[in-house]
Amino acid sequence: MPAFDFTLLSQDGAARRGRVMTAHGSFETPGFMATATAGTIKGMHPDAVRATGAELAICNTYHMMLRPTPERVAALGGLHKFMNWPGPILTDSGGFQVMSLAKLRQITEQGVTFRSHLDGSAHELTPERSMEIQHLLDSNITMCLDECTPHPATHEVAAASMRMSMRWAERCRQAFVKREGYALFGINQGSTYPNLREESAAALKQIGFDGYAVGGLAVGEGQEMMFRMLDATVPFLPEDKPRYLMGVGKPDDIVGGVLRGIDMFDCVMPTRSGRTGQAFTARGTVNIRNARHIEDKRPLDASCGCPACANYSRAYLHHLFRAEEMLGPMLLTWHNLTYYQTLMRDLRQATEQRNLQNFAAIFYEQQSRGDIEALA
Amino acid sequence: MPAFDFTLLSQDGAARRGRVMTAHGSFETPGFMATATAGTIKGMHPDAVRATGAELAICNTYHMMLRPTPERVAALGGLHKFMNWPGPILTDSGGFQVMSLAKLRQITEQGVTFRSHLDGSAHELTPERSMEIQHLLDSNITMCLDECTPHPATHEVAAASMRMSMRWAERCRQAFVKREGYALFGINQGSTYPNLREESAAALKQIGFDGYAVGGLAVGEGQEMMFRMLDATVPFLPEDKPRYLMGVGKPDDIVGGVLRGIDMFDCVMPTRSGRTGQAFTARGTVNIRNARHIEDKRPLDASCGCPACANYSRAYLHHLFRAEEMLGPMLLTWHNLTYYQTLMRDLRQATEQRNLQNFAAIFYEQQSRGDIEALA
Repeated sequence: MPAFDFTLLSQDGAARRGRVMTAHGSFETPGFMATATAGTIKGMHPDAVRATGAELAICNTYHMMLRPTPERVAALGGLHKFMNWPGPILTDSGGFQVMSLAKLRQITEQGVTFRSHLDGSAHELTPERSMEIQHLLDSNITMCLDECTPHPATHEVAAASMRMSMRWAERCRQAFVKREGYALFGINQGSTYPNLREESAAALKQIGFDGYAVGGLAVGEGQEMMFRMLDATVPFLPEDKPRYLMGVGKPDDIVGGVLRGIDMFDCVMPTRSGRTGQAFTARGTVNIRNARHIEDKRPLDASCGCPACANYSRAYLHHLFRAEEMLGPMLLTWHNLTYYQTLMRDLRQATEQRNLQNFAAIFYEQQSRGDIEALA
Repeated sequence: MPAFDFTLLSQDGAARRGRVMTAHGSFETPGFMATATAGTIKGMHPDAVRATGAELAICNTYHMMLRPTPERVAALGGLHKFMNWPGPILTDSGGFQVMSLAKLRQITEQGVTFRSHLDGSAHELTPERSMEIQHLLDSNITMCLDECTPHPATHEVAAASMRMSMRWAERCRQAFVKREGYALFGINQGSTYPNLREESAAALKQIGFDGYAVGGLAVGEGQEMMFRMLDATVPFLPEDKPRYLMGVGKPDDIVGGVLRGIDMFDCVMPTRSGRTGQAFTARGTVNIRNARHIEDKRPLDASCGCPACANYSRAYLHHLFRAEEMLGPMLLTWHNLTYYQTLMRDLRQATEQRNLQNFAAIFYEQQSRGDIEALA
């Protein structure tokens, strides 16, 4: 069984090109995870997800703890076998979804009690239970339970929230069962306050983790503030461990994150947008439901080799969404995942070639031009 | 361009093993079509449909005439290109869906006027317009416009309805534009009256078609009556042309149809049932939503090689349906299409080997045994 390991292959400014090894294989960084909330990447067969270039899947502890339950997943052989994803899997701690989905939440020093959004049943999630659940799921990368500080927060509220998360991080470290090829990541908090972000980074380093996430961003503070917080946080994280910006983001967020030294990203955007007819392209987003595509013979993105672009006209994709046919979301999800993975591949290559600034400039210029209009 | 052609390869009693050639390739008979109502097989990429063994797709004239319109499909290069299905395509006439879906229908000798179920817009479908639409769609097998006589019907009503359909069949024959590799099929009607079925068969033969469908069955008359009507109809159809039992059916309906000399079948059952969690197996149907599967480690059907059976436990499939995840319908649709195509392959083989009676006896015995219970 290979040890969990992060290899820094090359750097370009703050940006890093690396590789993470786990018990279930490796993934390249900077990398973007495939979102498998309830143990499935929505609308995709797993082999198709791998064909897009995705190597790491992220599942949600909150969803899996309610249904089918971690004990059942363990009895069925763990998440990899359950969902037919032999590659590396990361699980979040459950904390974020408890705050956004569950009912009657109560946070104390001990943990959080809540009622399921599915059936109202009572549950408790503590740092120790979160570690146990992620262990039962057989997650390769376990995330600490933290409180994602609501935005905006006063300095006082943000400090108290962050410090409790740091005490929880210590309890997670104690409860986590070490296994070869498995990792525990700490999560930096501190809202929009640079001194709290620095204090949090120091606290996490003191405990010692296999990787470091930046949490509590992309929660409404805006891209400029998010980038400022990365600038105020990343320099205080260890150089020799992977860095993960949680829940981010749009393509231009990711480019900005890589430029600032982030290695790992996850976001529901490519899959969720795909299901509603929004496609990502080199020239910005395209809403395929728009009537201008009704007779459009062109592919969605002529530069893309995914099945949606290789085999169909925009007119057909438009028809599928108008007729509410499943194949529409299936094809646009495939396209969006391909777009994201191609972007990550290009970012890795630009970083290797120390060409990232130039790549980013061209990327932003292309994005700002907007979709090519169909000829009349 | 190959001519449209039916080759009878072998026979076993009334059952036939054959091959149909079209301008877009051939398909083996007895064969089951892939249902692509609105220009897509629901929940499936076309290459996956082909991987199940399906060779012929059926699209619905009613749906395509309303949206995206046949003129648009023609401008986009025809249905094969539009939906990325290079193989043979059959289209129905639109008549059946007009009667089951449209509003304010009025049938006269001229044709049928109706309002769209989508937006209330007024439309007219005549034998001539149905031929034109199917021509614009570039369908390899065009079906005559007929009236699917409602069930039950008095002899008088059934006779009048059937005779109008025969007059429409003559108009379809006149309006159909002959092209190499393209075919026009007549449709036998006559409700549950053997003498009307025989009269209809004679009328169709008199006009002369490239294939003969049996319509107006599987509309509530029950399997026994349906088989009686096949016994009263098929002997009066030409031996050297393919025979198509429209909208049928359950696996045991198909076995009974093949035993009675039917070559082609279509039904929404494998795709529609797949979307609601019902799976077809050698041991009858399984409802994967049933709670007994919640911890069931077994595959859906150990004898099946489809992705649903090869890669997942029943517990996982159950979880997908409980969580309303798209992959559930996607996997069960794939399984059901595989089940149907495997059944057709076995029926063809048994017919070649003159072993069909024996095959059918084993089939019915297996089906009656029911799903194997999970071990405790």
